[in-house]
Amino acid sequence: MGGDLGPRSVVPACVRFLQRFPGAELKLFGPHDLLSSLLTEQQKSSLATRLQLVDCEQEITQECNPIQAVRHKRDSSMGRALQALADGQVQAVVSSGNTGALLALSRSILGTIDGVRRPALGKSVPTERGSCFLLDLGANIGCSAEDLLQFARMGIEAQRVHADKCELKVALLNIGAEAHKGTEEIRRAAELFESDPEINYAGFVEGHDIFTGCVDVVVCDGLLGNVAMKSAEGVIRLMGQKAFTIEDKTPFKRFFGQLAIKLLRKWRTQVEPSRYNGASFLGVKGNVIKSHGGASSEAFYRAMITAKECADADLAARLGDAMARLQARVSHQ
Amino acid sequence: MGGDLGPRSVVPACVRFLQRFPGAELKLFGPHDLLSSLLTEQQKSSLATRLQLVDCEQEITQECNPIQAVRHKRDSSMGRALQALADGQVQAVVSSGNTGALLALSRSILGTIDGVRRPALGKSVPTERGSCFLLDLGANIGCSAEDLLQFARMGIEAQRVHADKCELKVALLNIGAEAHKGTEEIRRAAELFESDPEINYAGFVEGHDIFTGCVDVVVCDGLLGNVAMKSAEGVIRLMGQKAFTIEDKTPFKRFFGQLAIKLLRKWRTQVEPSRYNGASFLGVKGNVIKSHGGASSEAFYRAMITAKECADADLAARLGDAMARLQARVSHQ
Repeated sequence: MGGDLGPRSVVPACVRFLQRFPGAELKLFGPHDLLSSLLTEQQKSSLATRLQLVDCEQEITQECNPIQAVRHKRDSSMGRALQALADGQVQAVVSSGNTGALLALSRSILGTIDGVRRPALGKSVPTERGSCFLLDLGANIGCSAEDLLQFARMGIEAQRVHADKCELKVALLNIGAEAHKGTEEIRRAAELFESDPEINYAGFVEGHDIFTGCVDVVVCDGLLGNVAMKSAEGVIRLMGQKAFTIEDKTPFKRFFGQLAIKLLRKWRTQVEPSRYNGASFLGVKGNVIKSHGGASSEAFYRAMITAKECADADLAARLGDAMARLQARVSHQ
Repeated sequence: MGGDLGPRSVVPACVRFLQRFPGAELKLFGPHDLLSSLLTEQQKSSLATRLQLVDCEQEITQECNPIQAVRHKRDSSMGRALQALADGQVQAVVSSGNTGALLALSRSILGTIDGVRRPALGKSVPTERGSCFLLDLGANIGCSAEDLLQFARMGIEAQRVHADKCELKVALLNIGAEAHKGTEEIRRAAELFESDPEINYAGFVEGHDIFTGCVDVVVCDGLLGNVAMKSAEGVIRLMGQKAFTIEDKTPFKRFFGQLAIKLLRKWRTQVEPSRYNGASFLGVKGNVIKSHGGASSEAFYRAMITAKECADADLAARLGDAMARLQARVSHQ
């Protein structure tokens, strides 16, 4: 029920997903009549065995704060979906609803993985050579060096799901590459990263390096990661908007302009966030994927693919193993 | 002598600038023979009265740290140019050299404006409706609420140079729009902004809002501003790179692809940083403009235009007045 478009983006994405993956099954949480009205009779009959509508009247609005969500909204579509994940009925949950509520309900209903100090939100973003996993995207602010170390370990596991590489290079987001730059926590984190045998530490990187492909995992405080991701989204939107408002006066130029805009749109989809939609909430006991609130049906479908990849790779279990290894190492020191 | 291209971007930009502004005069600091070799005989004779080459052998490399610069590099091209500004021989200095050295030498040679706690680096960036002034871009990290209040006052004066508007809306960059979001310093700054009669405070904004035009000045800690600006630059570069590597197989598509790339380049120049090149170092006694290190000749020319606008508006003096008013208000409380 979340996001700007609600079920109007989710339901078509589900139909497409089931058609693409014949072995997949979906549970769809929300008001039964509303969800049902968005499916054709033909879809209902052909997908009946694999698409289950789970009737929920309650929903979580954007105004709902995390505490209210945990106290009063466990029967919402979001709460019921997470409960199904906790009960092992499903292997991953995708939501484009209220982020704060999703994170709070995930922690409360699923619980955090043993040893995880603060679960983090992270996402694979496009680069010139492939992808890069950026975390935290805003679940936590005021992160300590120890928090950032856990993010690094979790980010490596998450990026392994998306990138087929052995040695993933890990970096810390900072104001410059030199060792003396940044806050004390960032510099302390650099020391922890350097001495961690499971981290192939590549040093500090700056904002633009997120997109060059020079590293595979970029770790930062949630305030920084949120600003980095949203600034990048903002400038892409600006570029699209500028492209559509420039008026070329001759009919000849207008004609080619239209064709060019089509190609530009195609290129934009290669780098814009919706193409890489689906942030993973790492550190809770289950695969929880946050889709962008403004997600189109296409973008929601991408988030479902991300969820499937995480479920197929059993990411939540891998994170549990990684955290257990880290715990063992820390207690051994 | 700074930036990736050094005098090869600066000298052509200077020639263009003098041709465009017949009343302008320039002093160019660097090794005389090198600078001279980049000018044609015709340029030398026609511009002789307005373009003065000031011979400096010493230069500041990217590796030089701010302390070294202040202690040992006052006779560098950068140091000599700032000294000319301090002496009133010039009205503004533009450099694409080492940022840390430029800021440290500016403070040391020019001095800070009375009452300014920490000078800040800020810049006008393109938006859907015009421009927005973002500061601090990385001169300061760990800013207090009081620092951010000064940045706001200075940002308003700087944006008035670029935007012809009476009431400029000022916002704080944060992780979300809700009042409870962000760090304690950001929330405390919000209280200071709200009670300041010279600030038309519009609340918290997120990264993408920098580019929508919903506000005119966005204030933040230097770490955040640096990450916001560099992430935006990175994704624009990525988009250009993706456009140039996508191969369309049919000759028909290749043909339109070429046309589209031309249009894309044109659009990119409207939003890319070089179009809005030139960050102002606000709070020192003089107009100091930092050009992007990767600036082309076109981009360096833009930074010179920014410098001219600041000099014409006597921005450094206006900042002095604004700070005096703020001081009077604070001491009155």
